[in-house]
Amino acid sequence: MEQFEKNNKNKIVRGAKRATYDKQQIFSILDAGCICHISFVINGEPFIIPTAYGRDGEFIYVHGSIKSRTMKAMTKGVPVCMAVTHLDGLVLARSAFHHSANYRSVILFGTAKQVESNTDKNHGLFVITENILKGRWEECRLPSQKELDITAVLKFKIESASAKIRTGGPVDEQDDYALDVWAGELPIITKYASPVADEKLRADIAVSNAAILAWQNANG
Amino acid sequence: MEQFEKNNKNKIVRGAKRATYDKQQIFSILDAGCICHISFVINGEPFIIPTAYGRDGEFIYVHGSIKSRTMKAMTKGVPVCMAVTHLDGLVLARSAFHHSANYRSVILFGTAKQVESNTDKNHGLFVITENILKGRWEECRLPSQKELDITAVLKFKIESASAKIRTGGPVDEQDDYALDVWAGELPIITKYASPVADEKLRADIAVSNAAILAWQNANG
Repeated sequence: MEQFEKNNKNKIVRGAKRATYDKQQIFSILDAGCICHISFVINGEPFIIPTAYGRDGEFIYVHGSIKSRTMKAMTKGVPVCMAVTHLDGLVLARSAFHHSANYRSVILFGTAKQVESNTDKNHGLFVITENILKGRWEECRLPSQKELDITAVLKFKIESASAKIRTGGPVDEQDDYALDVWAGELPIITKYASPVADEKLRADIAVSNAAILAWQNANG
Repeated sequence: MEQFEKNNKNKIVRGAKRATYDKQQIFSILDAGCICHISFVINGEPFIIPTAYGRDGEFIYVHGSIKSRTMKAMTKGVPVCMAVTHLDGLVLARSAFHHSANYRSVILFGTAKQVESNTDKNHGLFVITENILKGRWEECRLPSQKELDITAVLKFKIESASAKIRTGGPVDEQDDYALDVWAGELPIITKYASPVADEKLRADIAVSNAAILAWQNANG
């Protein structure tokens, strides 16, 4: 299976047993989320923003207002580090020390640049919108020229990446299994509730198919 | 109400209507989460890690292995930026442009330093554990000297912070309300499922009270 190459930036030192560089695993963790955290450096200091994103092959798109400080900071080919984290459960061990979490987490590195043409901007916005809610792009009114002009779309190649995945119950010290302490997992579920119509929605409009599909997928 | 002072780092420029610097609101968003993203700079480049955290007044604690690269990078009084983000729903507008999300998000800035004494380390680990699962610290075996020695606990004062909060339905362009497009919110629910006992759990041990309380709080 195709892997991201290990280097000084993406190599996982601690918990290496939980690490993977496999592209398909990394992509599937990315595609299961819709909000990432991106960090970048301004004047030598770290900044972080939560933002929507979308993946197109080995490229990531994010967007924002052209007036946003963070968009301005990231337009000119700056290094970024991006994280997508799904928390799947708390792992309660018999000792405080061995408490852990079940999770799927990706860290990736790239160099963000602003895309320029209308075609590329629209493609980036399509990728982001479809990652958040598949099928929504074709349901709604697409961006006008004025809207495109005030939207910054950033694109970057995933230069390197790694994932960490933990599943299963606690792993305790041998002596601790005799303790009178409950141990196990407290699973965390994230899902959609039923769609709630806008107060101003016309009464003759059927619920979004994209929303129904997302709700059905989340509720088995 | 007490506020964090605005400065160049924490001042929110875009979406200022959704911004708050109120300490109680910021603390309540922090206390509602258990995984944060922390960014820091190594050799001028941004890095980010997801990690557990806990708040004690205006101080944040995080921890990790003393062998972890990221812990090593953060021990010596380096600037960090930390984010806690709760995604509460997708907001589906009639236009692609006005799609949004409902969320509660905090960004904060501080200078991380390693705590040294056993007392301070134990306090930090208590704060982190209790933030993740209230009541768990007194249920489990507390850290041994050996465990404390291989655990790095970092502490930093919240030097500045801001929060953004969005709630409610979509806000569309006046002309778009006439479109045949469904609009509304797709709420996102995050909750605990029932606790799952460790396979190796002795049959005579009752379920953790801390886990039961967390599950009850999450399920009304």
